Amino acid sequence: MLKVSIIGATGYAGAELLSILHRHPQADVVHITSESHTGKNISEIYPHLRDIYDMKLESLSEIEQIGADSDFVFIALPHGHAMAVGKKLEKLSTRIIDLGADYRFDDTNIYEEWYSVQHTHKNAPRVYGLAEIYREDIRTAKIIGNAGCFTTASILALAPLVRHHLIESDSIIVDAKSGVSGAGRSLKQGNHFPELYDNFKAYNVAKHRHTPEIEQVLSDLSNEPVIINFTPHLVPMSRGILSTCYAKIKDMRVAGTIEAAFQKMYGNEKFIRLLGAGGYPETKYVRGSNYCDIAWHIDERTQRVIVLSAIDNLVKGAAGQAVQNFNIAAGFEEATALDVVPLYP
Amino acid sequence: MLKVSIIGATGYAGAELLSILHRHPQADVVHITSESHTGKNISEIYPHLRDIYDMKLESLSEIEQIGADSDFVFIALPHGHAMAVGKKLEKLSTRIIDLGADYRFDDTNIYEEWYSVQHTHKNAPRVYGLAEIYREDIRTAKIIGNAGCFTTASILALAPLVRHHLIESDSIIVDAKSGVSGAGRSLKQGNHFPELYDNFKAYNVAKHRHTPEIEQVLSDLSNEPVIINFTPHLVPMSRGILSTCYAKIKDMRVAGTIEAAFQKMYGNEKFIRLLGAGGYPETKYVRGSNYCDIAWHIDERTQRVIVLSAIDNLVKGAAGQAVQNFNIAAGFEEATALDVVPLYP
Amino acid sequence: MLKVSIIGATGYAGAELLSILHRHPQADVVHITSESHTGKNISEIYPHLRDIYDMKLESLSEIEQIGADSDFVFIALPHGHAMAVGKKLEKLSTRIIDLGADYRFDDTNIYEEWYSVQHTHKNAPRVYGLAEIYREDIRTAKIIGNAGCFTTASILALAPLVRHHLIESDSIIVDAKSGVSGAGRSLKQGNHFPELYDNFKAYNVAKHRHTPEIEQVLSDLSNEPVIINFTPHLVPMSRGILSTCYAKIKDMRVAGTIEAAFQKMYGNEKFIRLLGAGGYPETKYVRGSNYCDIAWHIDERTQRVIVLSAIDNLVKGAAGQAVQNFNIAAGFEEATALDVVPLYP
Amino acid sequence: MLKVSIIGATGYAGAELLSILHRHPQADVVHITSESHTGKNISEIYPHLRDIYDMKLESLSEIEQIGADSDFVFIALPHGHAMAVGKKLEKLSTRIIDLGADYRFDDTNIYEEWYSVQHTHKNAPRVYGLAEIYREDIRTAKIIGNAGCFTTASILALAPLVRHHLIESDSIIVDAKSGVSGAGRSLKQGNHFPELYDNFKAYNVAKHRHTPEIEQVLSDLSNEPVIINFTPHLVPMSRGILSTCYAKIKDMRVAGTIEAAFQKMYGNEKFIRLLGAGGYPETKYVRGSNYCDIAWHIDERTQRVIVLSAIDNLVKGAAGQAVQNFNIAAGFEEATALDVVPLYP
Repeated sequence: MLKVSIIGATGYAGAELLSILHRHPQADVVHITSESHTGKNISEIYPHLRDIYDMKLESLSEIEQIGADSDFVFIALPHGHAMAVGKKLEKLSTRIIDLGADYRFDDTNIYEEWYSVQHTHKNAPRVYGLAEIYREDIRTAKIIGNAGCFTTASILALAPLVRHHLIESDSIIVDAKSGVSGAGRSLKQGNHFPELYDNFKAYNVAKHRHTPEIEQVLSDLSNEPVIINFTPHLVPMSRGILSTCYAKIKDMRVAGTIEAAFQKMYGNEKFIRLLGAGGYPETKYVRGSNYCDIAWHIDERTQRVIVLSAIDNLVKGAAGQAVQNFNIAAGFEEATALDVVPLYP
Repeated sequence: MLKVSIIGATGYAGAELLSILHRHPQADVVHITSESHTGKNISEIYPHLRDIYDMKLESLSEIEQIGADSDFVFIALPHGHAMAVGKKLEKLSTRIIDLGADYRFDDTNIYEEWYSVQHTHKNAPRVYGLAEIYREDIRTAKIIGNAGCFTTASILALAPLVRHHLIESDSIIVDAKSGVSGAGRSLKQGNHFPELYDNFKAYNVAKHRHTPEIEQVLSDLSNEPVIINFTPHLVPMSRGILSTCYAKIKDMRVAGTIEAAFQKMYGNEKFIRLLGAGGYPETKYVRGSNYCDIAWHIDERTQRVIVLSAIDNLVKGAAGQAVQNFNIAAGFEEATALDVVPLYP
Repeated sequence: MLKVSIIGATGYAGAELLSILHRHPQADVVHITSESHTGKNISEIYPHLRDIYDMKLESLSEIEQIGADSDFVFIALPHGHAMAVGKKLEKLSTRIIDLGADYRFDDTNIYEEWYSVQHTHKNAPRVYGLAEIYREDIRTAKIIGNAGCFTTASILALAPLVRHHLIESDSIIVDAKSGVSGAGRSLKQGNHFPELYDNFKAYNVAKHRHTPEIEQVLSDLSNEPVIINFTPHLVPMSRGILSTCYAKIKDMRVAGTIEAAFQKMYGNEKFIRLLGAGGYPETKYVRGSNYCDIAWHIDERTQRVIVLSAIDNLVKGAAGQAVQNFNIAAGFEEATALDVVPLYP
Repeated sequence: MLKVSIIGATGYAGAELLSILHRHPQADVVHITSESHTGKNISEIYPHLRDIYDMKLESLSEIEQIGADSDFVFIALPHGHAMAVGKKLEKLSTRIIDLGADYRFDDTNIYEEWYSVQHTHKNAPRVYGLAEIYREDIRTAKIIGNAGCFTTASILALAPLVRHHLIESDSIIVDAKSGVSGAGRSLKQGNHFPELYDNFKAYNVAKHRHTPEIEQVLSDLSNEPVIINFTPHLVPMSRGILSTCYAKIKDMRVAGTIEAAFQKMYGNEKFIRLLGAGGYPETKYVRGSNYCDIAWHIDERTQRVIVLSAIDNLVKGAAGQAVQNFNIAAGFEEATALDVVPLYP
């Protein structure tokens, strides 16, 4: 039984962590924090947790004590805040899984450029937390920079093609669509119910912060620099991401190997379900689960491949991925607490 | 380990049963049937079950064999069809949990009147499957007539008041609202997405078939005939029922005992969460779970009590309730496979 | 051509007024105000108005000048703020249509009690702005207190029954459901998209401020005091109210006269569509229009009548009603700018 | 006053035509047809039209008589059915506006290939019905093949760039998202409310029939063959299309001329609203209106331009466009009956 704490438990990712960890037979949640709701019970903020979690929210100011009490600390804070926590826990044996962006970048200059924040923990020993790609590194990592939601859906869709050099590396376009929980719990006019309902829009075109994350991993996999177009959209629904990825096929004569590339990379992955050529993932087919469903379409006319991937942004795109990483790092069975049937319809 | 089968596995209640039973450590699903999809794999119909259930759908025509193979049979067929199954399994030791209406009525004349169907298994040994009220009878029952969705929300809201004679028995009005999954998987113009989206309506006013079910149980609890108004509405959402119940308080001087009545009846119930006087249940706080959240409001001006209750119609209103009944009947811990955190947001 | 101004143009009711007045051949919008957005162009706040309205938002501080410039002033401010405007325009010939609650009550004590605000314009010459009931008074009124949204749907559903004394006056229960635009444009955690989506809840049980408004008009119509239960609910949709009204029929032998009562009162009303006994209004059938659709059901078993009514809360429940009142007061054809086909699907 | 008829009035496009024509001072609807509902009143099918249209649905079998009675005939039938109508009206002076695909293609081989239907009216005198591009031809056309919904959004987004040769013609990718009304009124499991709600998916990847339509017009504008990727998605909402279009900029040094190209082509267009570089169209900002809102983003990193366009699929994407074409063809003011404020929120 390991002791775990959640720093920033009142955001949607924090709440989802609580839901998943409730099912975990080898993890015990010992501390939860919130700066805006310190002293309240978590079920006052989230009544769906009533009778399930009866815990007080503490303050980050006690972080050293919290760290000392915990085998693992999950951080679910806005970017720029995890670095300070990471530094304060540096000397402890406590391991960290950060759901934000602070520990995702190999090159902190890229982080500073895209996030307009100075990185204050540049030498942190860290790995990128996407199990299907960096599993071995995750096992022993001190700090795991959990992959972002759009990033997870997009990288998993493109990784086999990039690793096997089946597509032109400068031809990649990712058109992604997310449910509104991805925009967080903070109030915003554009996410006010009457305005987003029966509405659809793009945002942050050519400047969304998940862009360099996707580029970093795809470049790593292909051993050549990959630059992509990434366009996020907001779908009037609560959960789910569908990523539609376009790329030019290098050699149409070997387009048939695309299937083999997906099978080779994901054939044994518990949380990736391959729907095959011509398939259609739907976000509701993965809702509430840690699955990433993937299918691809080859367009002979344009010599492009279109890959579709679907995840639940709060599970495989955040808290589920974090628990998957936790299981790997702790030496547990990887699917512990994650073997859940999607909630449909 | 008990062997269970699902008759009518491709409706929403059947699919939800599969989801819940996947978590059950003491139940093994051995047969699933569908008349319209016989021979297909269940994951062709429900792709969210891919890699989770790899089972072929069989036909009802083999029901005797299916029954002989099974310790318990869950029936999720349209009303009028379970009776035939029940008769065919009469001689076997197989126990039955019927999610439809065929075995819900003590007086089959009422069934025949409201359902316009002849009852062909009038002497069936059966109990009404609402655990919080008929738990003891459920333990040994041969056939359990699982309570309906609107019924569950409405009875649980009113039972303590009726049992303790706190309200006028002819003053009860139940105004209920359900997500569209309650209307089933069959296509219907009124449930076509563009027509129901951003829309709200009532249906079956003064003639919905859950009316006599509510009346039967409330009459049983109060030992006097209870006649109610019941009005169902369709909410443009997928899951969830909110029941708003109105009744005249018999004696305002003892209105304070209302709280005690709820506490006495439900204080130890795992799946009932009392939000107390002045509380507000929301359907999303119970989504995907077996909880029924209840709160009440006393209106001094009109001397009425308004009770609000929320359930997930497919879980506590159907498949979750069925598994709760199964656990009781099989002698398992009642919450087995049902200790799930609601999916929020 | 009359000159009109809108005080508080950036709320949803204000924006809807702009939409409707754009179609009005005899009204010219000359001033629009907003305290939080003074100086901005209205299309910066509401991009759907781009190229349609190119007007700067002014401040209330110029209200006397705005009043002097205007034949009619529409006020769409939160309650408590219209009184000050009304007093400042007292000496002018400008007429006022207030979409808020300040001028709705004959007895300002009731206003003060339910709104917890002191009324500072008690002797204002005013009429209740519900054309189907107070049309004659509206023609010459200085100040029109436009009926509220829930109020309109509920009063129109019950008025014929109350006027003809067909129901028990202490038996009335109104269970109402509204789209979220009714809660306004201000941000609120409970109306944040991810939390309200796929969710349903009641609010303000036994204390919603539209209760005394409904009681005032029903009492006026019946010449006896009417006290009701009123329960509002929030539907996860943008626009629309459905009101489900219950009442005990006084004498079942003359239940057949219910239809005649509706026909007599509404047979010639342009904006009331009677769907008759057994009908089912749907909010989408009136979306974007000034219609109120009404149907009723007689339940022989309980001797109650259930009346259903549907409106668009921003049109017949606010801006459309205001323009209808404006047309009457100005001597225009009553349907001017309001003869719009509902937007379906 | 012209006499018009609608062939296929019970689909969503037909109903929308009725809504728009109700506002038209120079058009009188004389016949409406439906094969599945012949003999019924249109308001039985569409209760939102009650008291607005009191007309019986006729059968297509009387098409010659209907044609003889009508100055214009709008056809809103599934593809493959308008050709027969067109041939039967060949000799009459009646002019035709077909909302389907039968008369959209210059090269009927392309139609036959993508629609798997034999074209039986190949020599029909026809023009492509997209006013902003083919206005002059529309004035005198006998048959107008009204542009498709996805097509309209996509062509209008790309036309200025293609006409001025600012982008690589083989680099175009159109990722489009539509509300469910675009899939029509016919029932389909995938469009059943509980299954599409809170869900998002792609469909018809690399094979949607609007692909060759977009290619035809873009090729025509650029005088070189244009081949594109087109991917449609279904958004869980009722109305609206957002088209996200990607293309490689030919020469980054003249990327600044992109704005000029849009201004030149659309600066005087009533129904195109340019939101400029960096803007964000939202579908709800055009809901219920004939507007097409367009914005563009230049990505220096990838040297691509991303153009976003939003329309209401039933208005500018179908019935509104048809009436715009009708106004042009009839010599009326082009915006007649179309000067409508979008319905927001």
